[in-house]
Amino acid sequence: MPVGTQGTVKAVPQAVLEDLGAQIILGNTYHLYLRPGHDLIARVGGLHQFISWPRAMLTDSGGFQVFSLSKLRKLTEEGVRFRSHLDGSSHLFSPEHSIDVQVALGADIGMAFDECTEYPATEERAAESLKYTMLWAARSRKHFRENQHKVPWHGNILEPDGTPASQSLFGIVQGGMYPHLRRESAERLVEMNFDGYAIGGLSVGEPREFTRQIIAEVLPLLPADKPRYVMGVGFPDEIVEYAKMGVDMMDCVIPTRAARHGLLFTSEGRMNIKNRQFAEDSNPPDPNCTCPTCGRYSRAYLRHLMQTGEPLGGTLNSIHNLAFYLTTMANLRAELDSIS
Amino acid sequence: MPVGTQGTVKAVPQAVLEDLGAQIILGNTYHLYLRPGHDLIARVGGLHQFISWPRAMLTDSGGFQVFSLSKLRKLTEEGVRFRSHLDGSSHLFSPEHSIDVQVALGADIGMAFDECTEYPATEERAAESLKYTMLWAARSRKHFRENQHKVPWHGNILEPDGTPASQSLFGIVQGGMYPHLRRESAERLVEMNFDGYAIGGLSVGEPREFTRQIIAEVLPLLPADKPRYVMGVGFPDEIVEYAKMGVDMMDCVIPTRAARHGLLFTSEGRMNIKNRQFAEDSNPPDPNCTCPTCGRYSRAYLRHLMQTGEPLGGTLNSIHNLAFYLTTMANLRAELDSIS
Repeated sequence: MPVGTQGTVKAVPQAVLEDLGAQIILGNTYHLYLRPGHDLIARVGGLHQFISWPRAMLTDSGGFQVFSLSKLRKLTEEGVRFRSHLDGSSHLFSPEHSIDVQVALGADIGMAFDECTEYPATEERAAESLKYTMLWAARSRKHFRENQHKVPWHGNILEPDGTPASQSLFGIVQGGMYPHLRRESAERLVEMNFDGYAIGGLSVGEPREFTRQIIAEVLPLLPADKPRYVMGVGFPDEIVEYAKMGVDMMDCVIPTRAARHGLLFTSEGRMNIKNRQFAEDSNPPDPNCTCPTCGRYSRAYLRHLMQTGEPLGGTLNSIHNLAFYLTTMANLRAELDSIS
Repeated sequence: MPVGTQGTVKAVPQAVLEDLGAQIILGNTYHLYLRPGHDLIARVGGLHQFISWPRAMLTDSGGFQVFSLSKLRKLTEEGVRFRSHLDGSSHLFSPEHSIDVQVALGADIGMAFDECTEYPATEERAAESLKYTMLWAARSRKHFRENQHKVPWHGNILEPDGTPASQSLFGIVQGGMYPHLRRESAERLVEMNFDGYAIGGLSVGEPREFTRQIIAEVLPLLPADKPRYVMGVGFPDEIVEYAKMGVDMMDCVIPTRAARHGLLFTSEGRMNIKNRQFAEDSNPPDPNCTCPTCGRYSRAYLRHLMQTGEPLGGTLNSIHNLAFYLTTMANLRAELDSIS
């Protein structure tokens, strides 16, 4: 899932995302809550309508950005009081408020409000953090069930059986790098019966071997007939590995953020397009890629755009990296389909 | 002509420019000389190849940017010594060097090296400045005729009659706001027999009435069977007015620069899309426009993109403004064709 933090996958027009085959994109609840505000988005019909994205969308709970971006956080059982990274204004995110915001945004999938446990964390700290995440998961689910009919498009979209379509809500497994905490978290979430399950608190600086172990530990505990989502991963080889392990969904800013810094993922490996060696290289970035960037532009031109700070550089690089990620996953889906 | 200063019409992919109907774009000799360098561009086949733009291109002489951007300029009859605005390095632009650079870039149309007389300027100063421009026009033309076969694509592109295609060179009329200097400049340039003629030194801060007077004064002196180009204009109503006076070509950064600052040109007038009044406005920017931006996005979304500094804002706004300019001109051409 390409990440569209503020209601835009940075520097890439929606029509291009559609052409690249993106089926679902993310929006960040924290950012959209601050600007332009969830009430405004609800009044104009919800996030799909606001950003003109008719395909699927997922909003995170806001928890991760509250912890990573905001200032002066104060955590209580009620929720997190924090100051905006934009203007210092004071806000409270609780499970109930996160759900209210996500219902107003109206993405197809919302996430339970959680605390993303930092790495490294002692077992005591991870257990304490998990305690909040589990309490908040139950409150998120309850508040969601009571308020999901308030989604801006309620009644406008019907399921095949004629009932009104509604949002889905996923629970998030936490527990740091402690397998027994992760197991406890997964089992209790499954008892709560969410529409899907995410594994959070990974890709927070831990060695990749830990990431793999936690995924391997948790996945079998989550129902295979519901989506299983690992949050915030990863590099191309990682997402292939996790998909093969049984992960259904992943999101990451890497393809677009790396692109804006000139790092391209190609069938021949990683390429820093700013390197001097590409100054007169007339080859496409990736000779095996059929994306609009590789079909038209040379490495020399992309390097020039980066050297001169031209905005088209970020756009063309992002288009290629997203194409590489989406093609990698499309190929893998075909491969897994042919096996099963 | 949309302006592609550094080999890119800022924030707009080439395929979009083609879809919008752009027939010709500009490149700036001063910028491309400094980065990535004209020799590099020649080695990769010329500017068309380098930026992947198969349609027409025009390069300016570099003179305007030398005067407006560079530091510590020293003007002599030979040319202008200046320091780069990027790194302070010392360079000399003479008519011969400007032509060498423009031949290496290989745009379809190059411009004689001129001095863009500032506004206001005394008659004495304008006459002195014009003296250089006229000397340099003759030297530009001579050097161009002797070196035009060095264009990177020489021999690769043939005219319908089988002879090798070559670049065109336009002369530039200067003379400040003094009609008799302008007439002298135009008459002497026509004697030199250029492939087309530009009126430079306008849009430099003078009242619009002066711009109109100078164009009216000079146009009849320029052959109607060759392109007549007014440099650096203008707002939509200006370019319509000048085209009706007989001007064939114009270039301006206004549509793209204004777009990046949130100023849209629409069939209903100018619109600062950042204004609070558009925060929840679900209408397209211009209800009478069929461009990709107006066809998909709301004013509220474009405002949000500007408020959050998202790069997609500059791209979508630029696409609309270019569409507005290009459609305005296309409609005017059809109107003028139907009259004549």
